[in-house]
Amino acid sequence: MALPHCTDLQFRPALTQMKPYAPGEQPPPGKFIKLNTNENPFPPPPAVVRAITEAANGPLNRYPDPLATSFRRAAAEALGLPGPEWVLAGNGSDEILTLLVRGFVGESQSLRLPTPSYILYRTLADIQGAKWEQVAFTEDWQLPAEFRQPREDLRLVLLPNPNSPSGTVVPPSEIESIADSLTCPLVVDEAYADFAEENCLDLVQRHERILVTRTLSKSYALAGVRFGFLVAQPHVIAELTKIKDSYNCDAISIAAATAAMQSQTWLADVVTSVNCTRARLETELAGLGFDVVPSHANFVWCTHPSGEHRAIYEFLKANQILVRYMDFGDWGDGLRISVGTDDQIDACLLMIQRALAKLTT
Amino acid sequence: MALPHCTDLQFRPALTQMKPYAPGEQPPPGKFIKLNTNENPFPPPPAVVRAITEAANGPLNRYPDPLATSFRRAAAEALGLPGPEWVLAGNGSDEILTLLVRGFVGESQSLRLPTPSYILYRTLADIQGAKWEQVAFTEDWQLPAEFRQPREDLRLVLLPNPNSPSGTVVPPSEIESIADSLTCPLVVDEAYADFAEENCLDLVQRHERILVTRTLSKSYALAGVRFGFLVAQPHVIAELTKIKDSYNCDAISIAAATAAMQSQTWLADVVTSVNCTRARLETELAGLGFDVVPSHANFVWCTHPSGEHRAIYEFLKANQILVRYMDFGDWGDGLRISVGTDDQIDACLLMIQRALAKLTT
Repeated sequence: MALPHCTDLQFRPALTQMKPYAPGEQPPPGKFIKLNTNENPFPPPPAVVRAITEAANGPLNRYPDPLATSFRRAAAEALGLPGPEWVLAGNGSDEILTLLVRGFVGESQSLRLPTPSYILYRTLADIQGAKWEQVAFTEDWQLPAEFRQPREDLRLVLLPNPNSPSGTVVPPSEIESIADSLTCPLVVDEAYADFAEENCLDLVQRHERILVTRTLSKSYALAGVRFGFLVAQPHVIAELTKIKDSYNCDAISIAAATAAMQSQTWLADVVTSVNCTRARLETELAGLGFDVVPSHANFVWCTHPSGEHRAIYEFLKANQILVRYMDFGDWGDGLRISVGTDDQIDACLLMIQRALAKLTT
Repeated sequence: MALPHCTDLQFRPALTQMKPYAPGEQPPPGKFIKLNTNENPFPPPPAVVRAITEAANGPLNRYPDPLATSFRRAAAEALGLPGPEWVLAGNGSDEILTLLVRGFVGESQSLRLPTPSYILYRTLADIQGAKWEQVAFTEDWQLPAEFRQPREDLRLVLLPNPNSPSGTVVPPSEIESIADSLTCPLVVDEAYADFAEENCLDLVQRHERILVTRTLSKSYALAGVRFGFLVAQPHVIAELTKIKDSYNCDAISIAAATAAMQSQTWLADVVTSVNCTRARLETELAGLGFDVVPSHANFVWCTHPSGEHRAIYEFLKANQILVRYMDFGDWGDGLRISVGTDDQIDACLLMIQRALAKLTT
């Protein structure tokens, strides 16, 4: 339909110029083996499904608890935090990251992120009309000294740990030392920390400038429910609570997330299973000639000497297997493969083998 | 627990100075007759509860549809819009309002709102580091000419219609004329429009600067689910889609909201019932000596010649009935009473009668 007016709307210039963040492909369910967005291949804890069904029959005509108290209590209990006032609940950790950027970074101030890493942080800076600077990981995925340099207009530093796409971790002792060096808050994005051996929750109790974000999308198999949270000192939580929407989490997701935090045995079993499959995926990819970075997350980053990453991705996609092809410009490209079930990984490995056979003959 | 550090975190100055928005009281369920936050007293459409239960057993480990396509199709169909590209789904209309402020109003630019009205708009300007200006309604709830004056730094005008706390409406023809006069977008917040005779959806098709927000919290009895949406021309929707979180609505709320839009017969019945009770509430309040503004929403604004509004509110609260006491400073104060079930309204009226008897003897 033709529009009645030529547009003369004045959006903020920062927005009209920006390129939006592009999430991984989400094809209709059932058609693909989906190993491209680091979802958990298992269904969520049974207690979560029961909690949702119960909440569906609750007073949905009433506003939810604006502070998601039941969830915050369950999270504090499960994670060994001093109390619920150390937790801020959000509509996915994306919302928490948005709140952090809005809370700390003004127009024309800066945030810092490593690269290759999670480029959403750049989009959040763009939306805010703020600047971003990238500091490249070294070849063996270490952070150079530049990453910890303070600067007057630098207002937030973000570090996914484990990182994506590499699956590598920076040890908590080093993160503490980075935070000591900086003068602005350091956000440790622990979306994948449940699959790793260490995390930074203890550091939060010692450092007001260390802020940890978590999500229920990956380890708890709840990407569809949108629930994430921040762990930080209570005065930080209180200040950020002022800028969130009053009712940012709905009654059903609060019930689901509370039940998820109370499912720690389920979590331990699923993490063990995913990490076991991950080890097998790493070994078999190496056997196929790939350079594989040892992963502490639920995905594996790999590159092949042939450099045919895009072609392998396309071949897999044509055969109903979706992995993530990522191109970081000068830095290079590669494939990020989410850890699926054993059957899904077997199918993926078989198809990679066929792709290589086809591409290298 | 004592904090290990004195705080030296640099939040954005706009935030540390601002006073957060205070939503209506949300006491634990069951203890009060709750007539203070304009919730629907009835349970949501049965199809919604079925849709949630079904979604709970769906692939919650997978990310939801980032564009909420099923909902947008159902909304376009129910509202007679040209197509789903005229609709943007959000995590409550609060999120839509946040996106609009972030989309159009930069730091140190301005937005305009009427007063007495929905003060959340002021909070959204404060969070953004923007300015806000209030234009007072006339005594008979008309908008003065000042409301339609364009100005260079004025980037957004917001008008709840029906307005809260008054329940009054500005006719669509006048809204069109206001939009013609302004040079920035005019947001018509139609949270309560399902309870009114007219709305501005048709205007959106003629004016790119008229943007209509809706919520499922009130008329669809889904405050607990957090779902709202924007109706605007497709290029406006496309631009704002760039700044929303990729997955701002979860799989369960999308299923619930889709089912709600497909429950138009349920909606018509509930609106008839609420409006019938509202008429009775207005008549009986007038009989008790109140000045009552004829309402086009699911609440009634009333003032009493005694001026004892706060005392009446306190008396009701002590007797487990919550209404909203609102004080607009120089403008004056009053009571906003949500339309509950007939039984709830009978109980409320009886208690008001007792309060008046006590306060005026």
